[in-house]
Amino acid sequence: MFTKIEHIGIAVKDLQAANKMFGALSEIGLLKMEQVESEGVVVSFFKVGETKIEFLQSVDENGPIAKFIEKNGEGIHHIAFEVEDIDKEMKRLTESGFELLRTEKKEGADNKYICFLHPRSTNSVLTELCQDKS
Amino acid sequence: MFTKIEHIGIAVKDLQAANKMFGALSEIGLLKMEQVESEGVVVSFFKVGETKIEFLQSVDENGPIAKFIEKNGEGIHHIAFEVEDIDKEMKRLTESGFELLRTEKKEGADNKYICFLHPRSTNSVLTELCQDKS
Repeated sequence: MFTKIEHIGIAVKDLQAANKMFGALSEIGLLKMEQVESEGVVVSFFKVGETKIEFLQSVDENGPIAKFIEKNGEGIHHIAFEVEDIDKEMKRLTESGFELLRTEKKEGADNKYICFLHPRSTNSVLTELCQDKS
Repeated sequence: MFTKIEHIGIAVKDLQAANKMFGALSEIGLLKMEQVESEGVVVSFFKVGETKIEFLQSVDENGPIAKFIEKNGEGIHHIAFEVEDIDKEMKRLTESGFELLRTEKKEGADNKYICFLHPRSTNSVLTELCQDKS
């Protein structure tokens, strides 16, 4: 079962400019920035209530965010839902006919185990599951 | 200041199918459905933690959701943030250089006053402000 929206991921070309824009828009301060080597991105987080806005800038011209922007331009990239037991949820969703992008969970930003579902089984919404590692 | 993410709006072609999909995906029950005449849509809500997922299906072939799907296909349409005083926020954001789609708030789904910001000032993310009417 999904317990909350953990974050919404937004692909941007210029992370510093996005941080400045969202700070002015929301009047919320930047929570933190992080580099995620495995995804070829630098990311920033803003905490909005119990969830977060995550901006992602590619540092790898062949990485998934670079390719997304090349195809779609900037914009919302994914929604991430918090789950308590990611292994159990991955098994449940596979059995329910949803398609995982990989069969194994991996380490994501912000001290999380993550996995993605293919958007073709979720009304074209790239959907991430997140479980806190701690 | 933005206080929480009120909902994420997702444009779909078939609301019943989307409701079924998201129920199976999240194991969360449907909260409610509503018709919003002014926007030419029927919508459904699922409560996920403190925020909501809103699916929107057009009932007007010239309405904004029909046009969005024609151009982009199904997918995430907007992010809505809760604010305490929408008039004050609209004034603040205009003065900060953000562009409102309309200068007046209007009545939206779910007993809210709403307004939209033009995505060109928000990294191509269509952004909504919501204030509870009650």
